[in-house]
Amino acid sequence: MAKKTVELYDSTLRDGAQGEGVSFSTDDKLKIFSALDAFGIDFIEAGNPFSNPKDLEFFKSVRSKNGAKAVAFGSTARKGVAASQDENIAALLKAGTSHVAVFGKAWDMQVTEIIGASLAENLEMIADSVAYLKSRGRTVIFDAEHFFDGYRAAPEYALEVLKTAQRAGASVLCLCDTRGGAMPEEIGAAVKVAAKATDVPLGIHCHDDCGCAVANSLAAYRAGATHIQGTFIGIGERCGNANLATVIADLQLKYNVSAVTPAQLKTLTETARYIADVSNIRLPGCAPYVGGSAFAHKGGMHADGVVKNPISFEHIPPQSVGNERSLPLSEVSGRAAILAAIRQFDPSLDKNSPQTKAITAKLKKLEQTGFQFEAASASFDMMVLKELGRFTPHFEIDHYKVISSQGENGAEKANAVIKIKVGDRYEITADEGDGPVNAIDKALRKALEVFYPQLSKMHLIDYKVRVISGSDTASVTRVLIDSSDGNDEWTTVGASEDIISASVSALTDSLEYMLLKSGKE
Amino acid sequence: MAKKTVELYDSTLRDGAQGEGVSFSTDDKLKIFSALDAFGIDFIEAGNPFSNPKDLEFFKSVRSKNGAKAVAFGSTARKGVAASQDENIAALLKAGTSHVAVFGKAWDMQVTEIIGASLAENLEMIADSVAYLKSRGRTVIFDAEHFFDGYRAAPEYALEVLKTAQRAGASVLCLCDTRGGAMPEEIGAAVKVAAKATDVPLGIHCHDDCGCAVANSLAAYRAGATHIQGTFIGIGERCGNANLATVIADLQLKYNVSAVTPAQLKTLTETARYIADVSNIRLPGCAPYVGGSAFAHKGGMHADGVVKNPISFEHIPPQSVGNERSLPLSEVSGRAAILAAIRQFDPSLDKNSPQTKAITAKLKKLEQTGFQFEAASASFDMMVLKELGRFTPHFEIDHYKVISSQGENGAEKANAVIKIKVGDRYEITADEGDGPVNAIDKALRKALEVFYPQLSKMHLIDYKVRVISGSDTASVTRVLIDSSDGNDEWTTVGASEDIISASVSALTDSLEYMLLKSGKE
Repeated sequence: MAKKTVELYDSTLRDGAQGEGVSFSTDDKLKIFSALDAFGIDFIEAGNPFSNPKDLEFFKSVRSKNGAKAVAFGSTARKGVAASQDENIAALLKAGTSHVAVFGKAWDMQVTEIIGASLAENLEMIADSVAYLKSRGRTVIFDAEHFFDGYRAAPEYALEVLKTAQRAGASVLCLCDTRGGAMPEEIGAAVKVAAKATDVPLGIHCHDDCGCAVANSLAAYRAGATHIQGTFIGIGERCGNANLATVIADLQLKYNVSAVTPAQLKTLTETARYIADVSNIRLPGCAPYVGGSAFAHKGGMHADGVVKNPISFEHIPPQSVGNERSLPLSEVSGRAAILAAIRQFDPSLDKNSPQTKAITAKLKKLEQTGFQFEAASASFDMMVLKELGRFTPHFEIDHYKVISSQGENGAEKANAVIKIKVGDRYEITADEGDGPVNAIDKALRKALEVFYPQLSKMHLIDYKVRVISGSDTASVTRVLIDSSDGNDEWTTVGASEDIISASVSALTDSLEYMLLKSGKE
Repeated sequence: MAKKTVELYDSTLRDGAQGEGVSFSTDDKLKIFSALDAFGIDFIEAGNPFSNPKDLEFFKSVRSKNGAKAVAFGSTARKGVAASQDENIAALLKAGTSHVAVFGKAWDMQVTEIIGASLAENLEMIADSVAYLKSRGRTVIFDAEHFFDGYRAAPEYALEVLKTAQRAGASVLCLCDTRGGAMPEEIGAAVKVAAKATDVPLGIHCHDDCGCAVANSLAAYRAGATHIQGTFIGIGERCGNANLATVIADLQLKYNVSAVTPAQLKTLTETARYIADVSNIRLPGCAPYVGGSAFAHKGGMHADGVVKNPISFEHIPPQSVGNERSLPLSEVSGRAAILAAIRQFDPSLDKNSPQTKAITAKLKKLEQTGFQFEAASASFDMMVLKELGRFTPHFEIDHYKVISSQGENGAEKANAVIKIKVGDRYEITADEGDGPVNAIDKALRKALEVFYPQLSKMHLIDYKVRVISGSDTASVTRVLIDSSDGNDEWTTVGASEDIISASVSALTDSLEYMLLKSGKE
């Protein structure tokens, strides 16, 4: 493996926790730490032990398997308090990590107006905090907060902050664009000046308020920064932090930097999706490199092009980052993508076959009523088999009734009655659940397992609801269900004005898909 | 108004339609056209009349009020077909627009491998198509597809393509990073060379596959491009196009370019959100400038800082782009933000008041059970008033029952029975609806309007469902409801394992909020 020329520093567990709708449990944090460690991240900033005492527990329980260093984060000592007496510095030490990140102000306005210190006092706070942590055996990463704003307003002072931290023993001087307002050329120029003024490695910490966080991080790298901070999927305060997954792929594939091994890079997509799942964030389909649509070719000419030569519309091979090409099955993608999907069942069909035309027409019609098959290939397969006359349903739903109620004592109840038909036999049963969808799901399975005991192996792993034409509670509801039998996973879709009916439709597809699968095995 | 130094060109209706999950009706397209026109976009690429005949109708019905030019988009004539005989060119003319955009290949590999033409033939196809369209009175924008890939592989040929289009009469030569794989410094360098080799204005068209589309567009502007293409909210093929809203704000606020008037820039946020709504896309909270979280300060120190001096953590005034600051009401935001919200009801409270502590504790507890108040300030206000003992409910729900069924004929039905109490009086009623949520909504309003006729003015404008801990159909469901009385809009939240119960909770908050409001007026 080539020598690493950059250090990767992830702040998902600290700055990322400031993102919209993000809230980590200790278990979530341990999972994300392990994923980042396995991926090859060098430093994992995992919390502020002073402002969040729960983080102390986390630092005590976390263990790295692959060599990532956990980093405790906090501010310098407060104005007028010696570092050795400061509660915040004490909490940093209590975390027991080998590395600590300490932030201090590098913008004169912030010093005088926000923390109410003199410019000299601020330098003294930084020097004292860094030196004290160093004297207690810590490797100190100094985060120069607002460095680029400070450099714009009072360059001499901003540089003096860096030199002060360096003299006090900081191992890395990380230049922060805290407000996210700097442009790439400005970042590059300031990093070059900082590199001349100092002797220790420089870091970069960008925010995406101008949509330039990735480019700004790359501009800093090109100007000499070797310590790259970000959050793996870009979550963070306001518009988020530099998306580290994107920066890593750009560094590795566009600038030939060995940030991680090629094998680790192949886990980029899986790692990003796992972190999104644990963070309970929907990773946008359009996320560079790792999104579900990053290598999706919806336009007909693009789909044709990549089939002829992948590089025609793909700037890198999707597998190098563990992602894959997709030709989404939408009405825009044209007959080529649809045909490829149909041919898996009947290779004799071509684009002019009546069956191909019928399936394309059916697809359009279903999409108009709210179905979307891009993420639900199991439902697409079922639809194709039905249109080809190759599908015999394993069961029919005769009728069902779901009753949701809230009694006079305020308790909610949901129960469902269902009658199904399998061959000539009927089964009627009932069950109750947490809400109407869960109740009908349980009742349907209970009835079916009488005939198909293999269904007990199948379970739902995710259930997503989207209201489509969002005008009122009578809008169309689209339900996506991810199911698993322990080996495979598949996704089905249902759409209806009625959420129960949409759910039953997606459940029925999923159960039929499992029965088809188990019939073949 | 200062002279405009750049032309803005939006392709939401053409390239944006290639984005994941995007599908526009003609009515959607007309709405988006009007919004872009009002905002100040100069050129609106609105479809490919050859590949989508419906677009012809659109071009005939669209009218600009503010001077935006509709642009029809298509390829050059096919190999071996004279432009005057080509169906695609004929469709472009039929669209009847004053401006047309024609794309041709600028990468030698694409010419020989993908369209199977010789390099000379490709130049001839471009020259013939541009000259013929020009001879028919059209202003021609030439899109040099794959220009940057072509420039990397065979720079002389890529430049020859530009010169050919220029000689044939193109008014703009737009340089496209079709695969989205180029880096900003590469874009800047190539644009500079292209500017020396040609005499007509250069354009830039970027994709976001490396997370650099915005920075790449800005690099091209700095190198001399004056015609800027993108899609307003960034939707498009694969990872999307350059986000035009971000590029415009960066140009205007960071580079002092008068792309639009300051008054138009103040509608940036509203325009982006409107286009997202019409496109049925959730605009990410973290979207630069226009996102709901773009000026949200979740971290306690950041929230304190902006209260002292807004520039401390805001790189621009949010109102300059029509957005606003928010101090989200989450457990992370700390007591300062919560206190500010509480004080609107009781200015005598401070952070140590028992009421403040009780409300903070209540907020945490509700967040743990799935509520989220960041976007639902009406529910937050109701919760505060309840905790302060200042809220007298206008009604109580005694009990309800919702029955969803599918009969033997396959028809779905949903009906709801509800009994409510207002003072000492009871009202029991029933209604039916499209799905269980719609049924209970209608029944509840019907019962309440007996007592509160003013509720007839209120209506739901959006209903959103999110399944939170997505493990199975028994997960917690969070419902957000946006309501309006014609003047104001407000948002309420409900969360429960049962979607009906979550919806009833959000509906109840919304109805109570309306009754509180109307009591004051």
